[in-house]
Amino acid sequence: MSKEWLDGIKWDDRGLVPAIAQDAETNEILMVAWMNAESLELSMREGRAIYWSRSRQKLWRKGEESGNVQLLREMRLDCDADVILLKVEQIGSVACHTGRRSCFYRKLDDNSLTWETVEQVLKDPNEMYAK
Amino acid sequence: MSKEWLDGIKWDDRGLVPAIAQDAETNEILMVAWMNAESLELSMREGRAIYWSRSRQKLWRKGEESGNVQLLREMRLDCDADVILLKVEQIGSVACHTGRRSCFYRKLDDNSLTWETVEQVLKDPNEMYAK
Repeated sequence: MSKEWLDGIKWDDRGLVPAIAQDAETNEILMVAWMNAESLELSMREGRAIYWSRSRQKLWRKGEESGNVQLLREMRLDCDADVILLKVEQIGSVACHTGRRSCFYRKLDDNSLTWETVEQVLKDPNEMYAK
Repeated sequence: MSKEWLDGIKWDDRGLVPAIAQDAETNEILMVAWMNAESLELSMREGRAIYWSRSRQKLWRKGEESGNVQLLREMRLDCDADVILLKVEQIGSVACHTGRRSCFYRKLDDNSLTWETVEQVLKDPNEMYAK
């Protein structure tokens, strides 16, 4: 199988690029994680989002614990070839480990200059990870 | 002016975080660039996207050359506090230096395993930067 599509990507000095997961239907941004070449190739092969966990230093098949798998609908690359965009179908509606749909649930309040939580918890994280 | 909202952000070892610019109306992802604390604070103060250019090692007021300014409508922070999301109004319709609306104009073709260009050039880059 050709790997030319991987060679064109500008990995950083750790061999990683940021990957944005976006809802394929609503365009909502669900989360940002990191990918190395192996995780990107596996994502393509398996048709689901597979990231590289920087904290655990291992492949992270999104949803492997929580069940919140991201089915891959489309993959995009930016002009600088250093950011990946995944258009996904978010199984279970929840992408964030806090139980919210999106990880971007904090909004800057212009008056108070504080990050306000503006999205609801849809699933109890204790239930999501209690396996 | 309080800077607590900046202190909560987890800057990387270069003092940067990725920032996603998303169309505030359509949710289309326009581009990803980088911000340091100064660029983030200036973005908030001036109400427009101001990035940190890694290649030029200086502040980059998006649109300063091209005119393609991004007016800031809303700012979000992710659960790990290491990615910023800017909801913007893209002046001039074009975010990418190639003259396309979005930098994510290449799509992985599943059959050929090549990155196919799927978005049109809206503005001639030579005109955008011919100042």
